[in-house]
Amino acid sequence: MWTWRAEGVDPQTAKREESLFTLADGMLGWRGNYEEGVAAGYPTIHGCYLNGFFEQERIRYGEIAYGYAENSQTMLNVTDGQTIGLACNGKALRVGPEDVIQNERELDLRTGILNRKTVYRIPGGGQLTLRSQRLVSFRRPGVAAIRWTLTADKACDLEITPLINGDVTNRIVTDDPRVGSGLQGRVLSRPEQWMTDDEGRPGWTFAQTTEKSGLGLACSMFCCIPGQEAAIWYQEWQAGATYELALAPGQTVELTKICAYAWGKKDKLQEYADQTEKAADEALTAGFDALADEQKADLDAFWDSVGLEIEGDDALLLGMRFNLFHLFQAAGRDGRTNVCAKGLTGEGYEGHYFWDTETYMLPFFDSTQPAIARKLLEYRYSILPLARQRAREMGHAVGALYPWRTIDGHEASAYYPAGTAQVHINADIAMAVRRYVNCSGDKDFLRQMGAEMLVEISRLYYDLGFYDASKNGAFCICGVTGPDEYNALVDNNTYTNLMAAETMLYAAEVAEPLMEQLGVRPEEIRNWRDAAGKIYIPRDEKSALIWQDDAFASRVPWPLDSIPKENFPLLLHYHPLVIYRHQVCKQADLVMAMLLLPHRFTEEEKRVAFDYYDKVTTHDSSLSHAAFSALASRIGRMDKAYAYFRDSAVLDLEDTHGNTADGLHMANMAGSWFCLVNGFGGLDTDASMLSLDPVLPEQLVSYAFRVNWQGTCVEVRVNREGASYRRVSGPEITIMASGKEIKL
Amino acid sequence: MWTWRAEGVDPQTAKREESLFTLADGMLGWRGNYEEGVAAGYPTIHGCYLNGFFEQERIRYGEIAYGYAENSQTMLNVTDGQTIGLACNGKALRVGPEDVIQNERELDLRTGILNRKTVYRIPGGGQLTLRSQRLVSFRRPGVAAIRWTLTADKACDLEITPLINGDVTNRIVTDDPRVGSGLQGRVLSRPEQWMTDDEGRPGWTFAQTTEKSGLGLACSMFCCIPGQEAAIWYQEWQAGATYELALAPGQTVELTKICAYAWGKKDKLQEYADQTEKAADEALTAGFDALADEQKADLDAFWDSVGLEIEGDDALLLGMRFNLFHLFQAAGRDGRTNVCAKGLTGEGYEGHYFWDTETYMLPFFDSTQPAIARKLLEYRYSILPLARQRAREMGHAVGALYPWRTIDGHEASAYYPAGTAQVHINADIAMAVRRYVNCSGDKDFLRQMGAEMLVEISRLYYDLGFYDASKNGAFCICGVTGPDEYNALVDNNTYTNLMAAETMLYAAEVAEPLMEQLGVRPEEIRNWRDAAGKIYIPRDEKSALIWQDDAFASRVPWPLDSIPKENFPLLLHYHPLVIYRHQVCKQADLVMAMLLLPHRFTEEEKRVAFDYYDKVTTHDSSLSHAAFSALASRIGRMDKAYAYFRDSAVLDLEDTHGNTADGLHMANMAGSWFCLVNGFGGLDTDASMLSLDPVLPEQLVSYAFRVNWQGTCVEVRVNREGASYRRVSGPEITIMASGKEIKL
Repeated sequence: MWTWRAEGVDPQTAKREESLFTLADGMLGWRGNYEEGVAAGYPTIHGCYLNGFFEQERIRYGEIAYGYAENSQTMLNVTDGQTIGLACNGKALRVGPEDVIQNERELDLRTGILNRKTVYRIPGGGQLTLRSQRLVSFRRPGVAAIRWTLTADKACDLEITPLINGDVTNRIVTDDPRVGSGLQGRVLSRPEQWMTDDEGRPGWTFAQTTEKSGLGLACSMFCCIPGQEAAIWYQEWQAGATYELALAPGQTVELTKICAYAWGKKDKLQEYADQTEKAADEALTAGFDALADEQKADLDAFWDSVGLEIEGDDALLLGMRFNLFHLFQAAGRDGRTNVCAKGLTGEGYEGHYFWDTETYMLPFFDSTQPAIARKLLEYRYSILPLARQRAREMGHAVGALYPWRTIDGHEASAYYPAGTAQVHINADIAMAVRRYVNCSGDKDFLRQMGAEMLVEISRLYYDLGFYDASKNGAFCICGVTGPDEYNALVDNNTYTNLMAAETMLYAAEVAEPLMEQLGVRPEEIRNWRDAAGKIYIPRDEKSALIWQDDAFASRVPWPLDSIPKENFPLLLHYHPLVIYRHQVCKQADLVMAMLLLPHRFTEEEKRVAFDYYDKVTTHDSSLSHAAFSALASRIGRMDKAYAYFRDSAVLDLEDTHGNTADGLHMANMAGSWFCLVNGFGGLDTDASMLSLDPVLPEQLVSYAFRVNWQGTCVEVRVNREGASYRRVSGPEITIMASGKEIKL
Repeated sequence: MWTWRAEGVDPQTAKREESLFTLADGMLGWRGNYEEGVAAGYPTIHGCYLNGFFEQERIRYGEIAYGYAENSQTMLNVTDGQTIGLACNGKALRVGPEDVIQNERELDLRTGILNRKTVYRIPGGGQLTLRSQRLVSFRRPGVAAIRWTLTADKACDLEITPLINGDVTNRIVTDDPRVGSGLQGRVLSRPEQWMTDDEGRPGWTFAQTTEKSGLGLACSMFCCIPGQEAAIWYQEWQAGATYELALAPGQTVELTKICAYAWGKKDKLQEYADQTEKAADEALTAGFDALADEQKADLDAFWDSVGLEIEGDDALLLGMRFNLFHLFQAAGRDGRTNVCAKGLTGEGYEGHYFWDTETYMLPFFDSTQPAIARKLLEYRYSILPLARQRAREMGHAVGALYPWRTIDGHEASAYYPAGTAQVHINADIAMAVRRYVNCSGDKDFLRQMGAEMLVEISRLYYDLGFYDASKNGAFCICGVTGPDEYNALVDNNTYTNLMAAETMLYAAEVAEPLMEQLGVRPEEIRNWRDAAGKIYIPRDEKSALIWQDDAFASRVPWPLDSIPKENFPLLLHYHPLVIYRHQVCKQADLVMAMLLLPHRFTEEEKRVAFDYYDKVTTHDSSLSHAAFSALASRIGRMDKAYAYFRDSAVLDLEDTHGNTADGLHMANMAGSWFCLVNGFGGLDTDASMLSLDPVLPEQLVSYAFRVNWQGTCVEVRVNREGASYRRVSGPEITIMASGKEIKL
């Protein structure tokens, strides 16, 4: 249950597998492309991505209005370091049904290595076996390594051509809003090139820049086949080495190829080139095995922090491991980058950062990798000045408004009803600060960065909302879009209102002792508390049902079973006007609020809401199943909890949304973690101590996980006999376990 | 009070005057450009437009969704026939502060002729006086004529170059939604050219085509200076004649230039060329004076039908005449075109047709020019098949949905919240059918075209709305935008609901005896009546106030006097999200409903609504003042009525919206008519007989107007002694005058 395998050569699954076999280290992502390329017509999306490295374009609107986002941002497909040309007896070999006899790939989640064995037909007879191993190094961010081992059962002439290629483009997709409009043609400049050749280890460095975003990158490629001389060549957009050799039957030839990437503002290109040349050289000197050992050690530590075990459903276990591995691969760790909606596995959503990070992914990092969690929040702090600027553009004299989707901090959403209108992202970030501080105990972060964010976010909500006389003076927030994108521009979205209220309360608590440092006036503290206390929640008059927003009750009913199956997801088959006027949800909204703010709702409210919204939700968003699962666990609807958990755990492995080719669904992957830990395990990070309340679904024999609480790692094991808790590391701790205090 | 004059050379007012001095005949529009051109840097928007002649472009969306409008449509600036080069003693003379000593222009609303006198400095000394007269012929659609008369007080050499120019482009405006995104660069193809030269009357014909909309046009230009030989020339994009002559002091030289235009599908170019050559030749043979006589006769008939008199406010009288003259110029008369939002006076709103025609302009034509009114409705019938198709795209299995903005019948709105969401346009068209049929008695139109439109429109509303259990089973329409574009995507917009209800009732009445012919089922008739009977109106619980929509009551208050003056219009200074969440209106919405459906509301409801919405309306739309004025008259708020009437009457003449340069505001111009006739005069076209109920504001001594009712022209005169009525022409008639029946 530690490996994901694929066999054969199947055009139907080819692009999806490229996403699934992506390797990344939070900075560099390489899709699982075949180094030697694919045969003409065989489907592929070739992708090398750098987290945060993008080009922008002025957005053209058919009809412009004041304050619209100015520029698109698109994570670029960058300099290709994956490719290694292969020819045998004068014929180029590429993966496709014609030349390949056997093909197996296996991603090992413990080692982080993608192993491949491809057996080619040798032109003229015989079989050539190519074994490929690759990794993208956690220890050395931006460094990737490939090892090729070739053997043949018959003598043949080989031509092996490791190369670096600056002639890359992004996909062009204009009809699916979930992929993006895309950039047309070449975006990166013609590469500046440098070359070194030190004792049979040739190395090239390419430096390329973007025009409008002002960024530059360097990519160095070093390669070596021990004992073989290479013919060195370079062209305008490519360079590399060509090894020509005669392979005897049974003889083995081994190639190592190292790539290193660095990027930043384009005025420091030379610096990046120096860095990558050094990094590639060092990595080649260390050798593939040493890099693999480092990778294994880092992953051992990672899996230790997670402590995941599931007995009774192997597919679920593998799905979970696969998801957590990819999450670990996707997260930026440098404070200037975050987690793209699709990680570094594809071009879906243009490499943008959304609320997905704070709401879905951070819970996992808070509990297992607090250092990464902090870096992700530091990124949000780094763009606070732009969020202030955006608030001014949006008519607020005070406060900060975080962009709905962005890479560099500027709003990049070209459709504001499911973009800028989703002002809940502000509170999502604020609540992520609270959760991180609760879990980590990192008061330094709170003082240095978090408090300022909380204050600015609360100022925005207080300015945005108003006391509505027609609602008995309740504090209301109008004209926003909640998490559910099938109900846009609504008044008093419950999720938004409650998250804003909790944010203002927390900001008041944090800022009160720091008023001078933060420049907060006492009446601001009072205002936030007052508004939070009077926050408006739309409720059904006759039952415990809470409405998603003011108008939800009177939308047009649209029984989901009356809609033809092929018309899902609705967004690809109905105009937004049609969707918005119906009582239909794309995803968890109120259910998400109940998950994030469990203390705000009664048991009955949760049960009633779950049943009601479960009926009207299409789960067209991959963010939906996990939330429904976790809430279902908490209200004892274990069948639903288990079914939705499974949907979440295997969404990408089984490509149930049909678009895994464009990249893996990171928020959902993280969501499967909180299905287990918050859902089954009952982890509550809002409490003043670590609090758990495990349940075991009948489908499982047992499960275990670990969570970090302020420096202590606690292992939770749940089986038919009950739950047990163990302190794995760190100081002693008292926890709340199913309502009882336990000292570990 | 029959002429509009401008003097001098002022860059500040130059472009606005070009709009105001536009001449048009419903098919061809020539902005009031100077034939000899303007000096470098002097502001101008050069424009020759053909109603309905457009190019389309695929709309690029930053984020696409299902069902969005595919193509933009832009009325093109077409082949220029206005230009006549002028040089004196070897120097080109163009209008600008440097060369012009005196400049006067006068548009005569009785003759339809734009007269100009421009006195130029002769290089080397002396003065050259240019008198220009021009007209665009109502009698000969697409034909325009210019007469130049030149005299000098000192001998000089003149070079006069009448030309035709196919090298034309549209304005490019990307930052104002009210102008449009515009096309870039040349759009029309290089002209095919033909030339004739018959006894000193040279003539050229250009044929040009569009690439994507598949249209073609021909433009013929003939010219003549009696007794003078011209040098003939042609180039790739231009052709013309150059007359060189020596002008003695006091001698007069007279040039006549005729242009004729025709257009259609581009496969019939030769046909259009034959037409325009013949039309231009015939017009030149007739001569300018004969054309001017025809024009005067047609305008005499027009002013007779209007019978407008106002005593006590000359500016108001001139403003009204100016507005009605332009309205008459703007209206398409061929059944394949309509009235552009800016007529043929500029490129604002890209030459699109909106609800403006049916709701604002048709009332004027119904009462004075029923033949034009019918042609405008025939246009809507001609695009009914596309409206059916659009309904399918929008998820309706039945019915027709008219496009919010269009030229050829396809939806061309790139911003659906203030576009496709404004489904009230369907009812606006239906109610225009009812009004036209009431006023004209034209039952043929109703049987042949109107009934089918009514049925399809009603089917759409019945499918769009639903019986809301949470509102006691009332028939509700959710997720639409009403007339007021500062409140988008609302539920139960009162205007929309009531207009839809009236439409369904009228459709039931019209269709009931024609069910077989129309393919209407009896239950459809029942359904429409049932839905109309249960239509939902959002009301304040404690007063007679009716809400504009379900959520209006709980929007954020935004006192208009708290907004800095320079921040109006709001749409250019605030993001739509900011505007939408506030309780603020751009324009009349409920007030418009009260004007169009006066019998649906009590006196008290009207008074309460007027006061309430008057306070929260910015009138940022030019469609607003007239509606407020007319309702104010009906509820006895005569000061308001008069003030808003004046705002409406002089909006373009005084450029109070600051964008008259982009074209005149046709809906407002027509609105000033219903300020007088529906407002002061109390005309009610919903009644079974002609019904009037005049009031006289204290600012006026008297007023008079004429209205047509089913073939009878009735003159209404109102002064301090009361109202009097006279049958001007047509059969005897019984009218309802201030509640009393009178036989005329």
